[in-house]
Amino acid sequence: MLVVQKYGGTSVGDLERIKNVARRIISYRERGDHVVVVVSAMAGETDRLISLAKTITKSPDERELDVLLTTGEQVSSALLAITLNSMYCSAISLQGHQVRIITDSTHTKARIIEVEKDRILAELQKGKVVVVSGFQGVDKNDNLTTLGRGGSDTTAVAIAAALKADVCEIYTDVDGVYTADPNVCKKARRLPSITYEEMLEMASLGAKVLQIRSVELAKRYNVPILVKSSFIDGPGTLVCKEVTKMAMEKVMISGVTFNKNEAKITISKVPDRPGIAARIFSALADSNIVVDIIVQNVGRGNKTDITYTVSREDAKKALKISERVAKEIGAEEVTLDEDIAKVSIVGSGMMSHYGIAAKMFSTLAQEGINIEAITTSEIKISCVIKEKYAELAVRALHSAFGLDKEDIEEEMTCSSSFTTQP
Amino acid sequence: MLVVQKYGGTSVGDLERIKNVARRIISYRERGDHVVVVVSAMAGETDRLISLAKTITKSPDERELDVLLTTGEQVSSALLAITLNSMYCSAISLQGHQVRIITDSTHTKARIIEVEKDRILAELQKGKVVVVSGFQGVDKNDNLTTLGRGGSDTTAVAIAAALKADVCEIYTDVDGVYTADPNVCKKARRLPSITYEEMLEMASLGAKVLQIRSVELAKRYNVPILVKSSFIDGPGTLVCKEVTKMAMEKVMISGVTFNKNEAKITISKVPDRPGIAARIFSALADSNIVVDIIVQNVGRGNKTDITYTVSREDAKKALKISERVAKEIGAEEVTLDEDIAKVSIVGSGMMSHYGIAAKMFSTLAQEGINIEAITTSEIKISCVIKEKYAELAVRALHSAFGLDKEDIEEEMTCSSSFTTQP
Repeated sequence: MLVVQKYGGTSVGDLERIKNVARRIISYRERGDHVVVVVSAMAGETDRLISLAKTITKSPDERELDVLLTTGEQVSSALLAITLNSMYCSAISLQGHQVRIITDSTHTKARIIEVEKDRILAELQKGKVVVVSGFQGVDKNDNLTTLGRGGSDTTAVAIAAALKADVCEIYTDVDGVYTADPNVCKKARRLPSITYEEMLEMASLGAKVLQIRSVELAKRYNVPILVKSSFIDGPGTLVCKEVTKMAMEKVMISGVTFNKNEAKITISKVPDRPGIAARIFSALADSNIVVDIIVQNVGRGNKTDITYTVSREDAKKALKISERVAKEIGAEEVTLDEDIAKVSIVGSGMMSHYGIAAKMFSTLAQEGINIEAITTSEIKISCVIKEKYAELAVRALHSAFGLDKEDIEEEMTCSSSFTTQP
Repeated sequence: MLVVQKYGGTSVGDLERIKNVARRIISYRERGDHVVVVVSAMAGETDRLISLAKTITKSPDERELDVLLTTGEQVSSALLAITLNSMYCSAISLQGHQVRIITDSTHTKARIIEVEKDRILAELQKGKVVVVSGFQGVDKNDNLTTLGRGGSDTTAVAIAAALKADVCEIYTDVDGVYTADPNVCKKARRLPSITYEEMLEMASLGAKVLQIRSVELAKRYNVPILVKSSFIDGPGTLVCKEVTKMAMEKVMISGVTFNKNEAKITISKVPDRPGIAARIFSALADSNIVVDIIVQNVGRGNKTDITYTVSREDAKKALKISERVAKEIGAEEVTLDEDIAKVSIVGSGMMSHYGIAAKMFSTLAQEGINIEAITTSEIKISCVIKEKYAELAVRALHSAFGLDKEDIEEEMTCSSSFTTQP
């Protein structure tokens, strides 16, 4: 098998942990696998470097910030390669510019254009473990770039895709993807598997196991991702194309998530004519504000209400812009509510089931929780509620949809299974 | 003018010092110079990284050690570029692999084969200050390499040579090259200028201002080096091809140096026949022991004595090897003396003067210092004496050769003067 493994910052946080990582890699080599390892910077290192740069100036030159930040991964890759070699496992580190991970030139959040596979393959053929620095690449003019927070996940998936690896294992500090945040919902279960689409919704809803872009990439190239703990042995969660649910038809959703970092803005009595929504949201986009939920109620007469949510740090700025636009377009009132949470259920199972939304709303109603806004996608339903009800809502929905530990049998299998490369 | 400036680890030791460096660079830009800056790692960083690697294993893989170490200079180059840009001075950092500083593949002590100048020139033409990471390069297979301790000096000179820069300024924590160590000899003077040959002898004798290889390189390509303090303004010391000594004919030597890190081994009553010296010194070379002085006395009968010096850390090993070889060749006795110092006078002036050696020996004799071994080159005379006399010898010689502060007028000029590039 050809396996790509990715280790996050806590997994390579000190020399003892790096040794543990090396031991696992060696166990894979001993069973005959070829291994490419992608590493993040040691925990805290990226933040340390950023704060160093920010001490100099509030807005450091982004090209140079990337030069600074890529050293974090370079250090981890060298330390891991030194450790592997010291344990008689032949290893070589490669930086983004040596692999040639070609990106665009958007410094601090570049996107991968191409991963050249020749150098990695040449080193694998020499019997070496190849340790690649995550999070980094070079643009076509050979400038160093970084991929943004969590970019090492994307590096790992991109390499797995380029090499047509059998699996991309992501080692992190949790042992898989859960049906809900175990800190909030004691009965949350680890999902044996989950589809790319579900994972995308979970990730965008705040489950921070995988970077969204890495899941999108995995979906596009059909790379199976196995999320595992770096510290505890266990089967982890397989993220793949299609999950066979075997006698589990009652399970219609995969998880319940919540997000407390949003604020809701409502513009009331907006003239109901074409182009108005565009005016509002163009103004927000011009100020680089990312809008999450947008809800427009059916108009009453020639007036309508528009509600949207943004992250709390953007709330004040969004309010100001909305007030300005409201005046221009003749809307009556703008209100900001920061006391909200978004609770969502996710599951590709819901596509073929009636009544999921109704069940969600009635479950919340039974707990006395008022719903302030609703949006839906094919595999997700989100409700905005008062912040204080968030945890209660998660637990109630988790039970109502049969996700509690005692309700469910364990393993599900993944139809895009592991096959050895020809 | 096109100026290459090199800043050592203490000069970029913290953000405040980096800001001072930036201010100096900006003052050069303001007077219209083009500036290429070569930086070392922040003081202590290289040692920190080495000790990290040595915690893992006593002998870390050297290729990977280089990957680890090059991050030190990468961090400094990024921080300086960020600082310059924040002060509205357009700057770009380039790593060894981006400049394309091509070296051989001798990891941890690689030698520069070629410096490509296109990328640097292109950035200079855009009006940018180019900040190059010192100490590092890439081999022809794109592996990262380092040039060994003090390698940033060599980087700076190599770049100055490739660009045909007008001058290579080396900023360090001393304000120039001195006639003797000021800690030992209060009357030591800063030399306004010194020839490459003299500097080479001074450096090899323990004056740690410039890395020897950088001086060799400067000599080969006739790059004028100006050694200056990063902390105090001053004229510094110019290292160049030929020093015009103007009415200074009485000054025959440029400096007095000493080295206490040597040990002396004597093999007595060695059979005086061809090939014997080769046997001894091949055996030492095979064990990677660098021999400094070698003295062979005229034979008495068919026996001779051979004395040599090595660094103290190699002394015990050298003794063992010498004892083994002594037995094989039938020599009688091997003695080790660690209680020695080497005192040397250096000066291209001595070539055209008689009696320099005699004056040195008589000066030492007047102080009651016994000479245990002597070697000479065209511009240097070294004497091995008891360690406790080292400082006394330095001061006595410094006075005897008219180097004391009060004895001498200041400026000398350099015949290879600064000219603006066509």
